[in-house]
Amino acid sequence: MKIAKALQNVIDAFQALPGIGPKSAQRLAYYLLHVPQIQLDDFAVSLSDLKKKTLLCSVCKNVAEIDPCEICSELGRNKNMILVVEEPLDVVAIEKTGKYRGTYHVLHGKISPLENIGPDEIFTGELFERIKKEKVEEIIIATNPTMEGEATAMYLTKEIKKLNERVKITRLGMGIPTGADLEYADEATLTQAIEGRREI
Amino acid sequence: MKIAKALQNVIDAFQALPGIGPKSAQRLAYYLLHVPQIQLDDFAVSLSDLKKKTLLCSVCKNVAEIDPCEICSELGRNKNMILVVEEPLDVVAIEKTGKYRGTYHVLHGKISPLENIGPDEIFTGELFERIKKEKVEEIIIATNPTMEGEATAMYLTKEIKKLNERVKITRLGMGIPTGADLEYADEATLTQAIEGRREI
Repeated sequence: MKIAKALQNVIDAFQALPGIGPKSAQRLAYYLLHVPQIQLDDFAVSLSDLKKKTLLCSVCKNVAEIDPCEICSELGRNKNMILVVEEPLDVVAIEKTGKYRGTYHVLHGKISPLENIGPDEIFTGELFERIKKEKVEEIIIATNPTMEGEATAMYLTKEIKKLNERVKITRLGMGIPTGADLEYADEATLTQAIEGRREI
Repeated sequence: MKIAKALQNVIDAFQALPGIGPKSAQRLAYYLLHVPQIQLDDFAVSLSDLKKKTLLCSVCKNVAEIDPCEICSELGRNKNMILVVEEPLDVVAIEKTGKYRGTYHVLHGKISPLENIGPDEIFTGELFERIKKEKVEEIIIATNPTMEGEATAMYLTKEIKKLNERVKITRLGMGIPTGADLEYADEATLTQAIEGRREI
Protein backbone atom coordinates (compact mmCIF):
# COMPACT_ATOMS: atom_id res chain seq x y z
CA MET A 1 0.00 0.00 0.00
CA LYS A 2 1.33 3.42 -0.97
CA ILE A 3 0.97 5.99 1.78
CA ALA A 4 -0.37 9.36 0.52
CA LYS A 5 2.56 11.53 -0.64
CA ALA A 6 1.74 14.48 1.62
CA LEU A 7 1.76 12.11 4.56
CA GLN A 8 4.95 10.35 3.46
CA ASN A 9 6.73 13.74 3.21
CA VAL A 10 5.93 14.51 6.84
CA ILE A 11 6.98 10.99 7.90
CA ASP A 12 10.31 11.43 6.08
CA ALA A 13 10.91 14.85 7.65
CA PHE A 14 10.38 13.49 11.15
CA GLN A 15 12.48 10.43 10.46
CA ALA A 16 15.42 12.63 9.52
CA LEU A 17 15.49 13.97 13.08
CA PRO A 18 17.78 12.37 15.67
CA GLY A 19 16.13 9.84 18.00
CA ILE A 20 12.97 9.47 15.89
CA GLY A 21 12.65 6.08 14.20
CA PRO A 22 10.29 4.99 11.41
CA LYS A 23 7.47 3.97 13.81
CA SER A 24 7.56 7.21 15.81
CA ALA A 25 7.71 9.24 12.60
CA GLN A 26 4.56 7.48 11.34
CA ARG A 27 2.77 8.03 14.62
CA LEU A 28 3.64 11.74 14.69
CA ALA A 29 2.53 12.26 11.09
CA TYR A 30 -0.81 10.48 11.59
CA TYR A 31 -1.29 12.39 14.84
CA LEU A 32 -0.87 15.69 12.98
CA LEU A 33 -3.78 14.75 10.70
CA HIS A 34 -6.03 15.39 13.68
CA VAL A 35 -4.72 18.86 14.65
CA PRO A 36 -6.26 22.08 13.27
CA GLN A 37 -4.69 23.54 10.09
CA ILE A 38 -3.73 26.70 12.00
CA GLN A 39 -1.50 24.67 14.32
CA LEU A 40 0.21 23.02 11.34
CA ASP A 41 0.77 26.42 9.74
CA ASP A 42 2.21 27.84 12.96
CA PHE A 43 4.56 24.86 13.22
CA ALA A 44 5.58 25.40 9.58
CA VAL A 45 6.27 29.11 10.09
CA SER A 46 8.29 28.47 13.24
CA LEU A 47 10.50 25.99 11.35
CA SER A 48 11.07 28.37 8.45
CA ASP A 49 11.89 31.22 10.83
CA LEU A 50 14.16 29.20 13.09
CA LYS A 51 17.42 30.14 11.43
CA LYS A 52 16.22 33.37 9.83
CA LYS A 53 15.33 34.95 13.15
CA THR A 54 18.28 33.74 15.20
CA LEU A 55 22.00 34.51 14.94
CA LEU A 56 25.21 33.55 16.70
CA CYS A 57 26.43 36.12 19.21
CA SER A 58 29.65 37.62 17.82
CA VAL A 59 31.25 37.42 21.28
CA CYS A 60 30.26 34.06 22.79
CA LYS A 61 28.80 32.25 19.70
CA ASN A 62 25.62 31.35 21.59
CA VAL A 63 22.32 31.29 19.66
CA ALA A 64 20.63 34.63 20.20
CA GLU A 65 18.16 37.18 18.89
CA ILE A 66 20.39 40.22 19.35
CA ASP A 67 24.14 40.74 18.95
CA PRO A 68 25.87 40.76 21.39
CA CYS A 69 23.55 38.27 23.06
CA GLU A 70 21.47 38.88 26.18
CA ILE A 71 24.11 37.36 28.46
CA CYS A 72 27.12 39.13 26.90
CA SER A 73 25.31 42.47 27.08
CA GLU A 74 24.03 42.01 30.65
CA LEU A 75 25.65 44.57 32.96
CA GLY A 76 25.80 42.45 36.10
CA ARG A 77 27.83 39.68 34.47
CA ASN A 78 31.46 39.10 35.43
CA LYS A 79 33.21 39.56 32.08
CA ASN A 80 36.46 38.18 33.50
CA MET A 81 35.15 34.63 33.65
CA ILE A 82 34.41 32.50 30.59
CA LEU A 83 32.69 29.14 30.87
CA VAL A 84 33.41 27.07 27.77
CA VAL A 85 30.74 24.58 26.60
CA GLU A 86 30.24 22.34 23.59
CA GLU A 87 26.65 23.26 22.67
CA PRO A 88 24.09 26.07 23.20
CA LEU A 89 21.92 23.66 25.23
CA ASP A 90 24.73 23.41 27.79
CA VAL A 91 24.38 27.16 28.40
CA VAL A 92 20.67 26.64 29.08
CA ALA A 93 21.51 23.89 31.60
CA ILE A 94 24.10 26.01 33.47
CA GLU A 95 21.85 29.09 33.46
CA LYS A 96 19.06 27.06 35.06
CA THR A 97 21.19 26.55 38.18
CA GLY A 98 21.33 30.34 38.64
CA LYS A 99 24.78 29.87 40.23
CA TYR A 100 26.97 31.24 37.47
CA ARG A 101 27.24 34.96 36.79
CA GLY A 102 30.12 35.04 34.32
CA THR A 103 30.04 34.80 30.51
CA TYR A 104 30.11 31.82 28.16
CA HIS A 105 31.83 30.59 25.05
CA VAL A 106 30.04 28.04 22.89
CA LEU A 107 32.36 25.85 20.79
CA HIS A 108 29.52 24.29 18.72
CA GLY A 109 31.13 20.89 18.80
CA LYS A 110 34.14 19.06 20.16
CA ILE A 111 37.46 17.91 18.76
CA SER A 112 36.82 14.49 17.24
CA PRO A 113 39.50 13.12 14.90
CA LEU A 114 37.28 10.17 13.95
CA GLU A 115 34.71 12.57 12.51
CA ASN A 116 37.38 14.82 11.00
CA ILE A 117 36.58 17.63 13.41
CA GLY A 118 39.72 19.47 14.43
CA PRO A 119 40.11 22.66 16.54
CA ASP A 120 39.50 24.84 13.47
CA GLU A 121 36.10 23.29 12.76
CA ILE A 122 34.76 24.55 16.10
CA PHE A 123 34.96 28.03 17.63
CA THR A 124 38.33 27.63 19.41
CA GLY A 125 40.11 30.45 17.54
CA GLU A 126 37.39 32.88 18.62
CA LEU A 127 37.96 31.85 22.24
CA PHE A 128 41.69 32.50 21.96
CA GLU A 129 40.96 35.92 20.44
CA ARG A 130 38.78 36.76 23.41
CA ILE A 131 41.54 35.72 25.81
CA LYS A 132 44.00 37.97 23.96
CA LYS A 133 41.68 40.98 23.86
CA GLU A 134 39.58 40.79 27.03
CA LYS A 135 40.86 40.88 30.60
CA VAL A 136 40.09 37.23 31.35
CA GLU A 137 40.91 35.88 34.80
CA GLU A 138 39.34 32.44 34.77
CA ILE A 139 38.36 29.96 32.09
CA ILE A 140 36.02 27.19 33.27
CA ILE A 141 36.17 24.32 30.81
CA ALA A 142 32.79 22.57 30.88
CA THR A 143 33.03 20.22 27.90
CA ASN A 144 31.36 16.85 28.44
CA PRO A 145 33.25 14.18 30.39
CA THR A 146 33.49 11.98 27.27
CA MET A 147 36.63 11.02 25.37
CA GLU A 148 36.15 13.84 22.83
CA GLY A 149 35.16 16.34 25.53
CA GLU A 150 38.29 15.52 27.54
CA ALA A 151 40.50 15.79 24.46
CA THR A 152 38.96 19.19 23.72
CA ALA A 153 39.57 20.28 27.33
CA MET A 154 43.23 19.17 27.14
CA TYR A 155 43.78 20.97 23.86
CA LEU A 156 42.20 24.19 25.15
CA THR A 157 44.23 24.07 28.38
CA LYS A 158 47.51 23.70 26.47
CA GLU A 159 46.73 26.51 24.03
CA ILE A 160 45.42 28.91 26.66
CA LYS A 161 48.54 28.36 28.81
CA LYS A 162 50.65 29.34 25.77
CA LEU A 163 48.64 32.53 25.27
CA ASN A 164 48.46 33.70 28.86
CA GLU A 165 50.18 31.99 31.74
CA ARG A 166 48.38 33.90 34.46
CA VAL A 167 44.83 32.94 33.46
CA LYS A 168 43.32 30.41 35.87
CA ILE A 169 41.94 27.34 34.09
CA THR A 170 39.42 25.14 35.88
CA ARG A 171 37.30 22.13 34.98
CA LEU A 172 33.78 21.42 36.29
CA GLY A 173 33.79 19.22 39.42
CA MET A 174 33.24 15.55 38.69
CA GLY A 175 31.92 12.76 40.87
CA ILE A 176 28.71 11.12 41.99
CA PRO A 177 25.63 12.95 40.65
CA THR A 178 23.05 14.05 43.23
CA GLY A 179 20.43 11.39 43.84
CA ALA A 180 22.56 8.59 42.40
CA ASP A 181 23.39 5.32 44.11
CA LEU A 182 27.06 4.64 44.95
CA GLU A 183 26.50 0.96 44.25
CA TYR A 184 25.69 1.61 40.60
CA ALA A 185 28.36 4.26 39.91
CA ASP A 186 31.00 3.13 37.41
CA GLU A 187 34.69 2.93 38.31
CA ALA A 188 35.71 6.03 36.37
CA THR A 189 33.09 8.14 38.15
CA LEU A 190 34.07 6.76 41.56
CA THR A 191 37.76 7.40 40.85
CA GLN A 192 36.89 11.01 39.96
CA ALA A 193 34.79 11.28 43.11
CA ILE A 194 37.63 10.05 45.36
CA GLU A 195 40.20 12.33 43.69
CA GLY A 196 37.81 15.27 43.92
CA ARG A 197 36.83 14.71 47.58
CA ARG A 198 36.33 17.81 49.72
CA GLU A 199 36.69 18.50 53.43
CA ILE A 200 33.35 19.13 55.15
CA MET B 1 18.02 32.95 30.64
CA LYS B 2 15.46 33.66 27.94
CA ILE B 3 15.74 31.32 24.95
CA ALA B 4 15.49 33.13 21.59
CA LYS B 5 11.82 33.39 20.58
CA ALA B 6 12.25 31.69 17.19
CA LEU B 7 13.88 28.77 18.98
CA GLN B 8 11.26 28.67 21.73
CA ASN B 9 8.48 28.52 19.11
CA VAL B 10 10.01 25.39 17.59
CA ILE B 11 10.53 23.85 21.03
CA ASP B 12 6.87 24.52 21.89
CA ALA B 13 5.67 23.03 18.60
CA PHE B 14 7.62 19.81 19.18
CA GLN B 15 6.52 19.62 22.78
CA ALA B 16 2.88 19.65 21.71
CA LEU B 17 3.43 16.33 19.92
CA PRO B 18 2.66 13.06 21.71
CA GLY B 19 5.64 11.26 23.24
CA ILE B 20 7.98 14.26 22.99
CA GLY B 21 8.89 15.78 26.35
CA PRO B 22 10.55 19.13 27.13
CA LYS B 23 14.11 17.74 26.89
CA SER B 24 13.57 15.99 23.55
CA ALA B 25 11.82 19.08 22.18
CA GLN B 26 14.85 21.21 23.11
CA ARG B 27 17.25 18.73 21.54
CA LEU B 28 15.27 18.59 18.30
CA ALA B 29 15.03 22.38 18.04
CA TYR B 30 18.75 22.90 18.66
CA TYR B 31 19.53 20.11 16.22
CA LEU B 32 17.54 21.89 13.52
CA LEU B 33 19.78 24.95 13.91
CA HIS B 34 22.47 22.90 12.17
CA VAL B 35 20.44 21.76 9.15
CA PRO B 36 20.36 23.75 5.88
CA GLN B 37 17.56 26.32 5.44
CA ILE B 38 16.21 24.37 2.44
CA GLN B 39 15.56 21.33 4.65
CA LEU B 40 13.69 23.50 7.17
CA ASP B 41 11.60 25.01 4.38
CA ASP B 42 10.79 21.57 2.97
CA PHE B 43 9.73 20.40 6.41
CA ALA B 44 7.56 23.52 6.78
CA VAL B 45 5.86 23.02 3.41
CA SER B 46 5.18 19.35 4.11
CA LEU B 47 3.48 20.27 7.38
CA SER B 48 1.31 22.94 5.76
CA ASP B 49 0.35 20.59 2.94
CA LEU B 50 -0.35 17.58 5.17
CA LYS B 51 -4.08 18.15 5.49
CA LYS B 52 -4.54 20.23 2.34
CA LYS B 53 -3.28 17.46 0.08
CA THR B 54 -4.95 14.49 1.75
CA LEU B 55 -8.59 13.56 2.15
CA LEU B 56 -10.67 10.82 3.72
CA CYS B 57 -11.88 8.19 1.24
CA SER B 58 -15.68 8.53 0.97
CA VAL B 59 -16.03 4.74 1.11
CA CYS B 60 -13.62 3.44 3.76
CA LYS B 61 -12.61 6.73 5.50
CA ASN B 62 -8.91 5.92 5.16
CA VAL B 63 -6.49 8.82 4.55
CA ALA B 64 -5.89 9.06 0.81
CA GLU B 65 -4.89 11.25 -2.10
CA ILE B 66 -7.75 10.25 -4.39
CA ASP B 67 -11.42 9.45 -3.75
CA PRO B 68 -12.25 6.56 -3.62
CA CYS B 69 -8.86 5.60 -2.23
CA GLU B 70 -6.30 3.38 -3.88
CA ILE B 71 -7.53 0.29 -2.04
CA CYS B 72 -11.25 0.87 -2.59
CA SER B 73 -10.65 1.47 -6.31
CA GLU B 74 -8.30 -1.51 -6.79
CA LEU B 75 -9.93 -4.06 -9.10
CA GLY B 76 -8.44 -7.20 -7.54
CA ARG B 77 -9.86 -6.48 -4.10
CA ASN B 78 -12.64 -8.59 -2.64
CA LYS B 79 -15.37 -5.98 -2.04
CA ASN B 80 -17.43 -8.46 -0.01
CA MET B 81 -15.04 -8.38 2.94
CA ILE B 82 -14.59 -5.37 5.21
CA LEU B 83 -11.85 -5.27 7.84
CA VAL B 84 -12.72 -2.67 10.49
CA VAL B 85 -9.86 -0.85 12.25
CA GLU B 86 -9.54 2.03 14.67
CA GLU B 87 -6.88 4.12 12.93
CA PRO B 88 -5.35 4.61 9.45
CA LEU B 89 -2.02 3.27 10.77
CA ASP B 90 -3.71 -0.08 11.42
CA VAL B 91 -4.44 -0.34 7.69
CA VAL B 92 -0.74 0.20 6.98
CA ALA B 93 0.13 -2.61 9.43
CA ILE B 94 -2.34 -5.08 7.91
CA GLU B 95 -1.34 -4.18 4.33
CA LYS B 96 2.30 -4.91 5.19
CA THR B 97 1.44 -8.57 5.79
CA GLY B 98 0.20 -8.84 2.18
CA LYS B 99 -2.27 -11.48 3.39
CA TYR B 100 -5.48 -9.50 3.17
CA ARG B 101 -7.13 -8.74 -0.18
CA GLY B 102 -10.47 -7.34 0.98
CA THR B 103 -11.43 -3.74 1.77
CA TYR B 104 -11.20 -1.70 4.98
CA HIS B 105 -13.25 0.59 7.14
CA VAL B 106 -11.42 3.09 9.37
CA LEU B 107 -13.40 4.19 12.42
CA HIS B 108 -10.96 6.98 13.40
CA GLY B 109 -11.26 6.19 17.07
CA LYS B 110 -12.98 3.83 19.48
CA ILE B 111 -15.98 4.01 21.73
CA SER B 112 -14.76 5.46 25.02
CA PRO B 113 -17.40 6.70 27.45
CA LEU B 114 -14.70 8.16 29.74
CA GLU B 115 -13.59 10.49 26.95
CA ASN B 116 -17.16 11.18 25.85
CA ILE B 117 -16.67 9.33 22.58
CA GLY B 118 -19.79 7.44 21.60
CA PRO B 119 -20.59 5.51 18.38
CA ASP B 120 -21.64 8.74 16.64
CA GLU B 121 -18.27 10.42 17.19
CA ILE B 122 -16.52 7.77 15.10
CA PHE B 123 -17.38 6.45 11.63
CA THR B 124 -19.77 3.65 12.70
CA GLY B 125 -22.82 5.01 10.86
CA GLU B 126 -20.84 5.01 7.60
CA LEU B 127 -19.98 1.34 8.18
CA PHE B 128 -23.65 0.43 8.70
CA GLU B 129 -24.54 2.31 5.48
CA ARG B 130 -21.99 0.25 3.59
CA ILE B 131 -23.43 -2.96 5.00
CA LYS B 132 -26.91 -1.88 3.93
CA LYS B 133 -25.82 -0.86 0.41
CA GLU B 134 -22.98 -3.19 -0.53
CA LYS B 135 -23.12 -6.97 -0.82
CA VAL B 136 -21.01 -7.64 2.30
CA GLU B 137 -20.30 -11.26 3.24
CA GLU B 138 -17.79 -10.91 6.06
CA ILE B 139 -16.87 -8.20 8.53
CA ILE B 140 -13.53 -8.71 10.27
CA ILE B 141 -13.44 -6.60 13.41
CA ALA B 142 -9.83 -5.65 14.07
CA THR B 143 -10.12 -3.07 16.83
CA ASN B 144 -7.35 -3.22 19.44
CA PRO B 145 -7.64 -5.82 22.21
CA THR B 146 -8.03 -3.08 24.83
CA MET B 147 -11.08 -2.35 26.94
CA GLU B 148 -12.31 0.35 24.54
CA GLY B 149 -11.45 -1.73 21.49
CA GLU B 150 -13.41 -4.69 22.86
CA ALA B 151 -16.38 -2.49 23.73
CA THR B 152 -16.34 -1.10 20.19
CA ALA B 153 -16.19 -4.64 18.77
CA MET B 154 -19.17 -5.71 20.90
CA TYR B 155 -21.21 -2.67 19.87
CA LEU B 156 -20.45 -3.21 16.18
CA THR B 157 -21.30 -6.92 16.38
CA LYS B 158 -24.66 -6.20 18.00
CA GLU B 159 -25.61 -3.49 15.50
CA ILE B 160 -24.43 -5.42 12.43
CA LYS B 161 -26.43 -8.47 13.54
CA LYS B 162 -29.53 -6.25 13.73
CA LEU B 163 -28.94 -4.94 10.20
CA ASN B 164 -28.13 -8.18 8.46
CA GLU B 165 -28.28 -11.56 10.13
CA ARG B 166 -26.48 -13.44 7.35
CA VAL B 167 -23.28 -11.39 7.38
CA LYS B 168 -20.38 -13.32 8.94
CA ILE B 169 -18.67 -11.37 11.72
CA THR B 170 -15.15 -12.37 12.78
CA ARG B 171 -12.53 -11.02 15.14
CA LEU B 172 -8.75 -11.15 14.60
CA GLY B 173 -7.13 -14.23 16.17
CA MET B 174 -5.68 -13.57 19.62
CA GLY B 175 -2.98 -15.38 21.53
CA ILE B 176 0.78 -15.48 21.99
CA PRO B 177 2.57 -13.13 19.58
CA THR B 178 5.29 -14.67 17.39
CA GLY B 179 8.69 -14.57 19.08
CA ALA B 180 7.25 -14.05 22.56
CA ASP B 181 8.04 -16.13 25.63
CA LEU B 182 5.18 -18.14 27.17
CA GLU B 183 6.65 -17.52 30.61
CA TYR B 184 6.12 -13.78 30.35
CA ALA B 185 2.67 -13.83 28.71
CA ASP B 186 -0.05 -12.37 30.92
CA GLU B 187 -3.08 -14.40 32.03
CA ALA B 188 -5.55 -12.73 29.69
CA THR B 189 -3.33 -13.45 26.67
CA LEU B 190 -2.82 -17.07 27.75
CA THR B 191 -6.54 -17.54 28.27
CA GLN B 192 -7.16 -16.20 24.75
CA ALA B 193 -4.46 -18.50 23.40
CA ILE B 194 -5.98 -21.58 25.03
CA GLU B 195 -9.51 -20.70 23.88
CA GLY B 196 -8.21 -19.99 20.38
CA ARG B 197 -6.15 -23.17 20.05
CA ARG B 198 -6.04 -24.85 16.65
CA GLU B 199 -5.51 -28.41 15.51
CA ILE B 200 -2.20 -28.99 13.70
